[in-house]
Amino acid sequence: MPTEVVDNPSTRLEREASRVAADVDAFFADLLPVTGDAREPLFEAMRHAAIGGGKRLRPLLTVAAGNMFAIQRQRALRVGCAIEAIHVYSLIHDDLPCMDDDDLRRGKPTVHKAFGEAVAVLAGDSLHALAFEIVADPESHEDPNVRAELTLELARAAGPAGMAGGQMLDLEAEGRELGMPEIARLQQLKTGALIEYSVEAACILNRLHPEARTPYRGYARNVGLAFQIADDLIDHQGDEEAAGKRLGKDEDAGKATFVSLLGADRARQQAELLVEQACEHLSDHGSEADLLRAIARFAIERDR
Amino acid sequence: MPTEVVDNPSTRLEREASRVAADVDAFFADLLPVTGDAREPLFEAMRHAAIGGGKRLRPLLTVAAGNMFAIQRQRALRVGCAIEAIHVYSLIHDDLPCMDDDDLRRGKPTVHKAFGEAVAVLAGDSLHALAFEIVADPESHEDPNVRAELTLELARAAGPAGMAGGQMLDLEAEGRELGMPEIARLQQLKTGALIEYSVEAACILNRLHPEARTPYRGYARNVGLAFQIADDLIDHQGDEEAAGKRLGKDEDAGKATFVSLLGADRARQQAELLVEQACEHLSDHGSEADLLRAIARFAIERDR
Repeated sequence: MPTEVVDNPSTRLEREASRVAADVDAFFADLLPVTGDAREPLFEAMRHAAIGGGKRLRPLLTVAAGNMFAIQRQRALRVGCAIEAIHVYSLIHDDLPCMDDDDLRRGKPTVHKAFGEAVAVLAGDSLHALAFEIVADPESHEDPNVRAELTLELARAAGPAGMAGGQMLDLEAEGRELGMPEIARLQQLKTGALIEYSVEAACILNRLHPEARTPYRGYARNVGLAFQIADDLIDHQGDEEAAGKRLGKDEDAGKATFVSLLGADRARQQAELLVEQACEHLSDHGSEADLLRAIARFAIERDR
Repeated sequence: MPTEVVDNPSTRLEREASRVAADVDAFFADLLPVTGDAREPLFEAMRHAAIGGGKRLRPLLTVAAGNMFAIQRQRALRVGCAIEAIHVYSLIHDDLPCMDDDDLRRGKPTVHKAFGEAVAVLAGDSLHALAFEIVADPESHEDPNVRAELTLELARAAGPAGMAGGQMLDLEAEGRELGMPEIARLQQLKTGALIEYSVEAACILNRLHPEARTPYRGYARNVGLAFQIADDLIDHQGDEEAAGKRLGKDEDAGKATFVSLLGADRARQQAELLVEQACEHLSDHGSEADLLRAIARFAIERDR
């Protein structure tokens, strides 16, 4: 019997995810060379955080959406790396003792554990600035309108109306009882804004008018929320070794999550519904959107 | 005897500095409204740090350089506020217990003293992102090339090749004996890069080719260094109340400064020489550069 070599969507996703992960690592290795001066601990800390590890969901989304629009892969990847730089900086700061106080991230010591708190603050700040340097560089796109819009929307997704605002809501949530609408808003800001930007960035590269971006942003919003519910499920019942980080944190801190509010079964049903809705946003597309559809399904089928 | 109402350069500088300070306050008050949701402590912390206080040297430089190029004042001011946002974010993070551990800044409690460390980290991160949102917004300039270049150069000045890299050199300097070239490089990155950008930003708004910006960047580099030497002199022998912050820190920490290396007298002479050199870079200009010349002199004649 011959071996079956069907390129089904999940195999293709696995292959593309591995390729994106390797490309993101290579990009950061190139961007963050050994300096040979006293700034070396800073660059070492940035490499520690940015290279090797993580699901690379955000650059994968940008590359997959870019693929749907037939955008040059290298171009989508570059912007995806800027988004990943923002994501990694937020993890470094989020892990600090004054924030979540985590020792382990992506299966390695967190940056402040390995390099001290001061270097961790600076490594986060440096990756934050680098993200904007990446998108504003002429290499990102020859059209300055595209570069300026990539910058503007990235700043909005990262700032107090996006990710940083969501972190603040998360801080304020400790010891308070949040309901579903509050949890949904918190997550929409904290992780949703940057995930939505990951898909919108491909729309901007494709010079889509803001109104024409609506279904793609809708797809990303649903995927982001599904992803978060899956994260809560993993946090509730997952395997720390597979996850590469401490689990059960939210429960220990008495924080409400989708799982604590809905229960595991209803939360899982909700996540499945969100994945269906995400795929409906892509109904005008044929096979060129298959990778995005596979990512939506992967969001809730993973164990880390 | 009639009252003398001569508009000499230093009177004009004083007036312009007050006006810029008031405009920067108004800009941030407008940008950072009361949110009415759980993000309020974050916005309150940003307002605490960004409004009321500071010399506003950087926006003043941008406005003065913009004035020389006959750029709309509002336009230069807006970019100056983005630079100030970066400066303020760096002060918030620099004051953290894990960095310089300061309790007092601009005569007020530091952000982590007033709002806690976690909010201080997030307030710094938020101002960092907002800076890029300000420069990338179409309101900054109608030409997207200008916006993209403003973004790119700001990211470079703030990141590991600029301010954040300088902060790292500063961390590494503790307990080591730095010589003059090392101190000069540290300061060129830590404070010089953003001061240089403050003038370069006006050149970019004026659509000057990078090569044509050389004298203006030279002016800014000299002013930045003179300003730093004056800071070291104030830190060495100044008045804490006038300065609005703890003094003698570098000496207490055993850090080399321009003053510890050169002695107060030679340091002052060096600063005066830098101011002369700064003004020489403006020798092609007439009275339209008087404000920049007055800023250079102010750099070393202040007591805070």
